[in-house]
Amino acid sequence: MAAVENLSLIRRRKTKRINLGVVSIGGDSPIVVQSMTNTDTRDVESTITQIKKLEKAGCEIIRIAIPDKEAVLAIHAIKKKIGIPLVADIHFNYRLAIDAIKQGVDGIRINPGNISKDKIKKIVKVAKDRQVVIRIGINSGSLQKDLLLKYGSPTPDALVESALKNIELFEDQGFDLIKLSLKSSDVPGMIEAYRSIAVKTDYPLHLGVTEAGSLINAAIKSSLGIGTLLYEGIGDTIRISVTGNPLSEIPLAYGILRALGIRKIGPEIISCPTCGRCEIDLLRLTNKIEKALAGRKDYLKVALMGCVVNGPGEAADSDIGIAGARRQGILFKKGKVIKKIKEKDFEKVLLKEINLMLDERKIV
Amino acid sequence: MAAVENLSLIRRRKTKRINLGVVSIGGDSPIVVQSMTNTDTRDVESTITQIKKLEKAGCEIIRIAIPDKEAVLAIHAIKKKIGIPLVADIHFNYRLAIDAIKQGVDGIRINPGNISKDKIKKIVKVAKDRQVVIRIGINSGSLQKDLLLKYGSPTPDALVESALKNIELFEDQGFDLIKLSLKSSDVPGMIEAYRSIAVKTDYPLHLGVTEAGSLINAAIKSSLGIGTLLYEGIGDTIRISVTGNPLSEIPLAYGILRALGIRKIGPEIISCPTCGRCEIDLLRLTNKIEKALAGRKDYLKVALMGCVVNGPGEAADSDIGIAGARRQGILFKKGKVIKKIKEKDFEKVLLKEINLMLDERKIV
Repeated sequence: MAAVENLSLIRRRKTKRINLGVVSIGGDSPIVVQSMTNTDTRDVESTITQIKKLEKAGCEIIRIAIPDKEAVLAIHAIKKKIGIPLVADIHFNYRLAIDAIKQGVDGIRINPGNISKDKIKKIVKVAKDRQVVIRIGINSGSLQKDLLLKYGSPTPDALVESALKNIELFEDQGFDLIKLSLKSSDVPGMIEAYRSIAVKTDYPLHLGVTEAGSLINAAIKSSLGIGTLLYEGIGDTIRISVTGNPLSEIPLAYGILRALGIRKIGPEIISCPTCGRCEIDLLRLTNKIEKALAGRKDYLKVALMGCVVNGPGEAADSDIGIAGARRQGILFKKGKVIKKIKEKDFEKVLLKEINLMLDERKIV
Repeated sequence: MAAVENLSLIRRRKTKRINLGVVSIGGDSPIVVQSMTNTDTRDVESTITQIKKLEKAGCEIIRIAIPDKEAVLAIHAIKKKIGIPLVADIHFNYRLAIDAIKQGVDGIRINPGNISKDKIKKIVKVAKDRQVVIRIGINSGSLQKDLLLKYGSPTPDALVESALKNIELFEDQGFDLIKLSLKSSDVPGMIEAYRSIAVKTDYPLHLGVTEAGSLINAAIKSSLGIGTLLYEGIGDTIRISVTGNPLSEIPLAYGILRALGIRKIGPEIISCPTCGRCEIDLLRLTNKIEKALAGRKDYLKVALMGCVVNGPGEAADSDIGIAGARRQGILFKKGKVIKKIKEKDFEKVLLKEINLMLDERKIV
């Protein structure tokens, strides 16, 4: 993927660095974008197809559900065909975790809310022998029963206590290939849990708002929860949960990273909300340009502005931009006025110029 | 609108309270949701129609562009027909601001980037006589030229200096019906500008990320920028900028406020991303329930969960919820298991139960 840019305002929390297959997490590694398949894992072909699409879109780690023995047996075939690290998601059954490790996954995620302490010890032993990463994946919807009883509800403190107790259990066995997540469907609860754990350990953190809902709600909740933490320097890998196709998670993840200046991947389109001053069809233009640039990895700031109030200022501050007026506009490139163009030529001229700019970068 | 609930974690910044027509802003008033029309203001009928739709959706203050004399003349007719406060958005021409005030707007927004100090003084004099609120609307795309020269680019400090200089100008004339905005299309820049001004004055703040793009990008950038600040207690009124129909801004605004626990208006739908464990068509169900509840003002937490991992936990924590299994699910109400239902009956049963719950509330 493209270069990493850390905004100077963000002072990232210092964490241990761990390797999950070919990807490192924590330390000064980039914030890694991950997702999870929603195919039936036992359907190897569909699962591989989905992973390949996710990988192409920019997904850097993939997790698959392992609900039974048949799913475990699919791991080897899936792993062989994909390029990104594979994580097995395990609940309830510790034998599935051990078998998944033996099948060659790069990491596993276990939930201490549904696997007992003794069984977790057995998993850790095998993970240690094979040097496989374990994510301790705490979740407000499935907190361990003793802590739910103690706190009455899955409060941030309860999630943190679960994480700390499990870290101790792991460390007692001399195992530290640990990643942590303390997810909640409640945004403030999630923020407070991560803030609290961030100052208590230096293991890398996987951030997520769990069960965030369908696309728009997931964009809102994930930006609020994950974004607030990232802007404070907390978080090493992120997963956006969207009800629906996991492919839709990737642009959201990069959208958050790009808007915070953490990883500038993909085009940034600045476009105004339009108002009574706008005399061009800006929505149509924005949709066309967005569609034409969808999936591009190159960072480029494009300003599509309806009028002369903020148009020239924003266009001048972008790689390329148009400030509209009555059925025409001024084309800007790198802060300079290039020419006046007619509205009917906006799309054609913009895309031609953008492709030219990106080609020039490659030559340099 | 429904009751206000302030999350205990948020300690709101203390601000002056001002009245914009029938709506108060700042102090301990609720965080007010506002928008702006994108009709041609001179087309009175279309403008009124759009405002009425926005009002119905939950918009609490409306702004209209006043680009010329003809638009000024539309104010009176528009104002007569709408229930929410009306704000005139003025650039370049101070006479339009003065005329808009005389036409009976509840507030005006001026941009010190394009109206000179002497002309602003004249506006303030008339606003003071008529006790009309003025928003000092600083924008990174149209910062005043002397400050752009001084700082080289529209930095947070430059925006803050513009705001402070204008506050001084207003106060020197004995005028304090002031609201401030320091918008930027750059999320970190916007956050830093508002954080800085928040500790330097106690005027209420209008938050917004400007030119935030089309729906998904606007959801991401606005949640990041506005959400981070609101969660710190900064901000008294918000406007989400979406390229396209302003009606789409209102659910985003309430989505942010709801997710942060600031104003719980409208249904909150908790739904899982689905994975290899999910054996029901959760996306279809989520879409159906979302559509059926769209536009409802009542707060209600609905959990739609694909499997038994987090399903029972989330469903039990909601007003109503379903935890799915193989083509069936368990219905929960207020933490209690009610009954097992078949997948084909999910939608019907859920909507019936939801309507029953909301009716009961009205009776109480």
